[in-house]
Amino acid sequence: MKVAYTQNQHFFSERRIDGGVASRQFTETFQTIRQQSINLTVTLSVEDMAVQSMADTTPIKWHLAQTTWFFEKFLLARFVKDYLPFHPAFNLLFGNSGLFPRDQRSLITRPGLSVIRSYCTHVDNAVLALLKNMPEEAYAILELGLQKELQNQERMIVDIKHLLGSNPFHPAYINKPLVPAEKVAGLKMLELRGGMAEIGHPGLTFCFENELPKHRVFLNPFAVADRKITNGEYLAFVNAGGYAASRWWLEAGVEWRKKEHIRAPLYWRKIDDSWHEYTLHGLIPLDLNRPVCHVSYFEADAFARFSGARLPTEFEWEVAANSIIPELPGLPTLIDADSKKQTDDVFLHPSGASTATGLKQFFSDAWEWTSSAYAPYPGVKLRNDEMIENYERHMVNQYVLRGGSVATAPENSRISYRNFATTGTRHQFSGIRLAHSIY
Amino acid sequence: MKVAYTQNQHFFSERRIDGGVASRQFTETFQTIRQQSINLTVTLSVEDMAVQSMADTTPIKWHLAQTTWFFEKFLLARFVKDYLPFHPAFNLLFGNSGLFPRDQRSLITRPGLSVIRSYCTHVDNAVLALLKNMPEEAYAILELGLQKELQNQERMIVDIKHLLGSNPFHPAYINKPLVPAEKVAGLKMLELRGGMAEIGHPGLTFCFENELPKHRVFLNPFAVADRKITNGEYLAFVNAGGYAASRWWLEAGVEWRKKEHIRAPLYWRKIDDSWHEYTLHGLIPLDLNRPVCHVSYFEADAFARFSGARLPTEFEWEVAANSIIPELPGLPTLIDADSKKQTDDVFLHPSGASTATGLKQFFSDAWEWTSSAYAPYPGVKLRNDEMIENYERHMVNQYVLRGGSVATAPENSRISYRNFATTGTRHQFSGIRLAHSIY
Amino acid sequence: MKVAYTQNQHFFSERRIDGGVASRQFTETFQTIRQQSINLTVTLSVEDMAVQSMADTTPIKWHLAQTTWFFEKFLLARFVKDYLPFHPAFNLLFGNSGLFPRDQRSLITRPGLSVIRSYCTHVDNAVLALLKNMPEEAYAILELGLQKELQNQERMIVDIKHLLGSNPFHPAYINKPLVPAEKVAGLKMLELRGGMAEIGHPGLTFCFENELPKHRVFLNPFAVADRKITNGEYLAFVNAGGYAASRWWLEAGVEWRKKEHIRAPLYWRKIDDSWHEYTLHGLIPLDLNRPVCHVSYFEADAFARFSGARLPTEFEWEVAANSIIPELPGLPTLIDADSKKQTDDVFLHPSGASTATGLKQFFSDAWEWTSSAYAPYPGVKLRNDEMIENYERHMVNQYVLRGGSVATAPENSRISYRNFATTGTRHQFSGIRLAHSIY
Amino acid sequence: MKVAYTQNQHFFSERRIDGGVASRQFTETFQTIRQQSINLTVTLSVEDMAVQSMADTTPIKWHLAQTTWFFEKFLLARFVKDYLPFHPAFNLLFGNSGLFPRDQRSLITRPGLSVIRSYCTHVDNAVLALLKNMPEEAYAILELGLQKELQNQERMIVDIKHLLGSNPFHPAYINKPLVPAEKVAGLKMLELRGGMAEIGHPGLTFCFENELPKHRVFLNPFAVADRKITNGEYLAFVNAGGYAASRWWLEAGVEWRKKEHIRAPLYWRKIDDSWHEYTLHGLIPLDLNRPVCHVSYFEADAFARFSGARLPTEFEWEVAANSIIPELPGLPTLIDADSKKQTDDVFLHPSGASTATGLKQFFSDAWEWTSSAYAPYPGVKLRNDEMIENYERHMVNQYVLRGGSVATAPENSRISYRNFATTGTRHQFSGIRLAHSIY
Repeated sequence: MKVAYTQNQHFFSERRIDGGVASRQFTETFQTIRQQSINLTVTLSVEDMAVQSMADTTPIKWHLAQTTWFFEKFLLARFVKDYLPFHPAFNLLFGNSGLFPRDQRSLITRPGLSVIRSYCTHVDNAVLALLKNMPEEAYAILELGLQKELQNQERMIVDIKHLLGSNPFHPAYINKPLVPAEKVAGLKMLELRGGMAEIGHPGLTFCFENELPKHRVFLNPFAVADRKITNGEYLAFVNAGGYAASRWWLEAGVEWRKKEHIRAPLYWRKIDDSWHEYTLHGLIPLDLNRPVCHVSYFEADAFARFSGARLPTEFEWEVAANSIIPELPGLPTLIDADSKKQTDDVFLHPSGASTATGLKQFFSDAWEWTSSAYAPYPGVKLRNDEMIENYERHMVNQYVLRGGSVATAPENSRISYRNFATTGTRHQFSGIRLAHSIY
Repeated sequence: MKVAYTQNQHFFSERRIDGGVASRQFTETFQTIRQQSINLTVTLSVEDMAVQSMADTTPIKWHLAQTTWFFEKFLLARFVKDYLPFHPAFNLLFGNSGLFPRDQRSLITRPGLSVIRSYCTHVDNAVLALLKNMPEEAYAILELGLQKELQNQERMIVDIKHLLGSNPFHPAYINKPLVPAEKVAGLKMLELRGGMAEIGHPGLTFCFENELPKHRVFLNPFAVADRKITNGEYLAFVNAGGYAASRWWLEAGVEWRKKEHIRAPLYWRKIDDSWHEYTLHGLIPLDLNRPVCHVSYFEADAFARFSGARLPTEFEWEVAANSIIPELPGLPTLIDADSKKQTDDVFLHPSGASTATGLKQFFSDAWEWTSSAYAPYPGVKLRNDEMIENYERHMVNQYVLRGGSVATAPENSRISYRNFATTGTRHQFSGIRLAHSIY
Repeated sequence: MKVAYTQNQHFFSERRIDGGVASRQFTETFQTIRQQSINLTVTLSVEDMAVQSMADTTPIKWHLAQTTWFFEKFLLARFVKDYLPFHPAFNLLFGNSGLFPRDQRSLITRPGLSVIRSYCTHVDNAVLALLKNMPEEAYAILELGLQKELQNQERMIVDIKHLLGSNPFHPAYINKPLVPAEKVAGLKMLELRGGMAEIGHPGLTFCFENELPKHRVFLNPFAVADRKITNGEYLAFVNAGGYAASRWWLEAGVEWRKKEHIRAPLYWRKIDDSWHEYTLHGLIPLDLNRPVCHVSYFEADAFARFSGARLPTEFEWEVAANSIIPELPGLPTLIDADSKKQTDDVFLHPSGASTATGLKQFFSDAWEWTSSAYAPYPGVKLRNDEMIENYERHMVNQYVLRGGSVATAPENSRISYRNFATTGTRHQFSGIRLAHSIY
Repeated sequence: MKVAYTQNQHFFSERRIDGGVASRQFTETFQTIRQQSINLTVTLSVEDMAVQSMADTTPIKWHLAQTTWFFEKFLLARFVKDYLPFHPAFNLLFGNSGLFPRDQRSLITRPGLSVIRSYCTHVDNAVLALLKNMPEEAYAILELGLQKELQNQERMIVDIKHLLGSNPFHPAYINKPLVPAEKVAGLKMLELRGGMAEIGHPGLTFCFENELPKHRVFLNPFAVADRKITNGEYLAFVNAGGYAASRWWLEAGVEWRKKEHIRAPLYWRKIDDSWHEYTLHGLIPLDLNRPVCHVSYFEADAFARFSGARLPTEFEWEVAANSIIPELPGLPTLIDADSKKQTDDVFLHPSGASTATGLKQFFSDAWEWTSSAYAPYPGVKLRNDEMIENYERHMVNQYVLRGGSVATAPENSRISYRNFATTGTRHQFSGIRLAHSIY
């Protein structure tokens, strides 16, 4: 298997900078990204791809169908004369307004995987034919579809992990052992001065609607940790009885913890008194130097309180990330010292922090919970548009995660990118960076 | 696909009559019954066999593993020297005391179907080898295992129907159309005199523990319908507003109906104002002459009340069935005028009643709800025995169904056989026969 | 406070025996029984009478209104010319078809207790006026109303116990201490021969519909315990880990036990490692010689299984009770050696068994769970009649309790009386008598 | 009954301005505010005060006990030598860390109201005695307690309304009819320029912890409605099918609406096709000119979307309120043109807007939902302190309401005051003010 995101890291940037459009380049890009989705399924069985492990996940075969549907619905049906949909019911089944109950998708054993693969091929061929002579206005839609497919690839990885992690046999997704991480240095809190900050995407290259518009926010001085919290640091919280000490927890977190019988991060498993962690590389002894991940907002917040700190706001996070990586027009994706992707090798588990000084570990390991509720940026014009999935209708009772995980495409690893989840969500690669105010 | 139960209808009877045991015959029986389970899956996809459509059903591949486990656990592990289990964890996974939550079996995508097929083959070969020289005491266990496998085949059919019936595309399991049934004659209530009745299995041939011991019950005179209630008769209840009229319903039934939003039998579908029924042969217009089935105890009871009648007790049912089919020693399975299985053709949907006079339709179409709570027979010695699945521990809050359905093996179609379900169960082929007291 | 049931023990029998009707006697009976309901509330606060402690209980003031409603609806509205109801909405509020959700009755703070007391007085005065010249056919309705009021008085006591027993201060309802019971003798199983038994009420005196018609049942020989199980015997089950050992429990019982976090009978409280029991006389150290009570069907059944026994059927129970107390026409209520009511004193907690030999403790301490599902007797004519509360519509998923409790009126303490409850019910005074089959 | 908030409107301000402390004045203030709580209960029955109408409300008698507990725990127990608590268990029962399940408080019928009144008197007398010679550091605690009691008085009113509003008889709390409101003028959107804004309480007078620290926020230009949305305007939304049109609703709002069967604001009742509204003055025909209230965040947000607008942020709200009412040091409470309290009369239902031009209706009618998630202000030092109820532990999954309602004390009617609730909350007087961005 080969995930190999790195080759297409700058897919979209060139076109934007010179303003031109190269059909040939888009053909390659389309084929590469579409193939990546298929590549992610190479080691999966038909059964692995049929099942939804909980209401918040989606069967893998359904993921393939949904991204395909986008191209059929918004590109082929609009720009190909007399286009005949692959199946008349797929729009109702796989579209954004899907009529089948979201939490019962396992029941749809038919269409089976082979039909959905045919659906992918059918649509891919039609898009490739269209690309030979595609009207100018269709390119933005094609790009949006590909960007959403990249996003979806992360969801596939996360959903696969949840399914295999629910299996009592702890099967590995990637048959390559993880070596223990290097010992990380002690946590340092780095201070940043406050003032007016520019928040949001500059808009020259692609971004999602929720990153716009760019706007100004006034911030007080604050300090932020130079790296993420490790499993070792989090284990100290667990061992100190942190899960039973309600004073560290939000009231709603205490309720959640009791109702869900939560006693440790999602994939931690205690075997013979020794903590292990399920990873996509199989079950391993808990690696104390890797970042803790698969914690909920409640757990992240409780850990911060226990540590005499707090979570950063999403604005503080963005300012901190910008402080090491000045944002350049036309270069939205970035790689800091710790987020280099292996070019010849793929690992799908967060690495430990490097020993470099300064802020690090902002991308490519685990998302970071912020204390910011997910809300529209000031001045946004809300609109009902199926193509952008009415994204603003999700903006309530969720919190923002920033950065990116080991499963995130480099194209989606940018400072202004806003991920979000409800406060009890744990199946995403979600970790913790501490902050505190400076008085 | 070929279900073809009829060939092995008398598998077990011969041995019992002459008291001898023929290894060769058991070899054939074992192979035939085991093959039947596989045959049931011929038209299913890997995905169809991986998914559990609700908590009360079981993935089809899991069905295969569970019956196989029985032979491994109680036959091979006991009678084959140094037998090495196929996989050390399968006992915990597939055994009666299965540790994995019953309602989340879809999550076990691994072991996949191919592994489970290997498990079946591995165990089958070991049993066949054992059969060449099997100790006398093992035959009863082998027979129990095969009888349970026959039971399980009905469950497989019922679970397949629930899965495919949940699919918005209404796929057929059997690609053979159903022709409309002949018009049935009007319902007649036939009177039976009361008195002492012998209830339960005589014990000369195989039966399950819950049919024992044979005992006497005193009955008042009663009348019983000559056939089952048809879809047409049930539709009249629906059209008369029967589902909204609480006076026909048990209090608990009113609650159930509201909570589950029940407005018609499980597989009825109203399409453009016209009632259809999902069958294993696909979606068909509701056939008014076929028996209503997939109704709950609550629905059966409400219909009876609406009709000025009641459900029979399981004892009345047994007496009525015996009145047409005098029970012979050594001939436990039976076929009445309406329950002839097609020998060259398989249909898995209940037929309409014949026009023959007298009591009919007791077997081979749909189980019949009785008003008897499922309870141990007098004098039974309860015991904790994993091999018989501690059957008495299920004897509460369930009601007895009698007869047999189109999915029931002839070996399980006997007068003393006791099926059972909770009052809201509808995925079994369950129908209605009316009765009333004679004053 | 004075409950003092015993004086009116033979209220209704005389009329029945001589066939005549004495208005004066009924006037006294009516006043006495109505006053008894009020007497039960003497030590309660207005708040105690306003609140419903769980969905299965009813506010005490509502109890008063419901029994009053019966007389208004079925007696006054039918037999008093131009009768003006006390309040036009009370029929909807307090009638059998009450429109307000049953589990939210606490919300009806208005009408308050004082209005409901006025309602009682208003209706009582009207009934007393009517009694001076009441048509013959009204007497049966009056008697039914009074019998229901006597039943309701038990419910009031049970509901009061549940409310006060939920209070962290363990308030007593009766300010009179309980003295420890005498040591009971070892349990003896007494054998009864089988055969045809007459079951049900003979019909000469008053009974409820569910006791009819009298009919015959054939029984195998069986043995029944001479007395109820004591707290001491049940404690041995608890101490032996009985609550955690699923093999003693019905499958549905295991689920119930886990979901409800059940570890002991309802009112047992462990304080500083020592078991106590909440009683209507306050919290006392667990009295090992008194009968265990407030156990569910599941607990009773599990204890029986643990003891190598089973619960009796309701028919076995009735035969056993009849074996000591031959049923006489016109003498439906009875008192065995252990069920003598204190004439000058009231205790509302079950006494220990006497040391008399033979069967005992059938009445006046705690109901006894039977293994019989609650079902109509053979030949019963079901009818929808608001006056008898459509009693047959409750006949599903419930089990029969027989005998009577310390809170039961003597008028309701008869061999044929059938109480019933769902398998998880514990707030009634419900205990255990063992039985077993004789092979 | 007499609520009469206005007399004590400036209770606390004087002390703060001159820096001195007048014991006599505090004695009066204490007595007045304590008496106000009692006054609120004058028309209530004992039953009204005993019952909790849903999990989010509290029995009225419990309210009395909780505020009393504060003075006992933090004032008397600390500053009165050898103070003996009224009852040793009340700390566990009524304290912030109350051990009894919050949603079952109705069960505590004992201590009854009379005991709790004694508790109030006992504590009041002890506080009055203490006040004659109270140490300086105790005054801030006394003030905090009184401020919390004022808050609690609003909760009492809201909880009473929920209880009486659940009653099928629609009883009035105040026996004084409401006259129809004057016709309001058309809605105007007034523009405010953006820039740096000072947010939060200046700190010279009393405020709650969540209003601190004062800090700066940068805002874009925006427009805000000059008044609240009326019932008439909201009815247009209802009549346009707004509740069924998911496109106006947040995804989580659609789920909430379906699950709770929401079709109109909480107290709207359709009677014979005509809309009415339950008020504390009884059921009245819906007054189209009064502000809509008792809507959830979801409903407020959906209405705004339907209107092509949005809810203001809490910062925009504060800036808009400040634009008409420049904040003065030492004058934290305020009254705008529409929020004058009747001095000789009390009405507990929102009035319609005046016809004055400019921004109005910010206080004294209904709280206004803002789009801001409830979060700590920058730089706040979190601490675990029982006296302030660990207020920061509630700061998740809730949204801020600003302004004040007809039930809010003038002392709590200040620009910086932050109320909050979960998105489905409706029992508070919560209304809608629209805003939009200026591009």
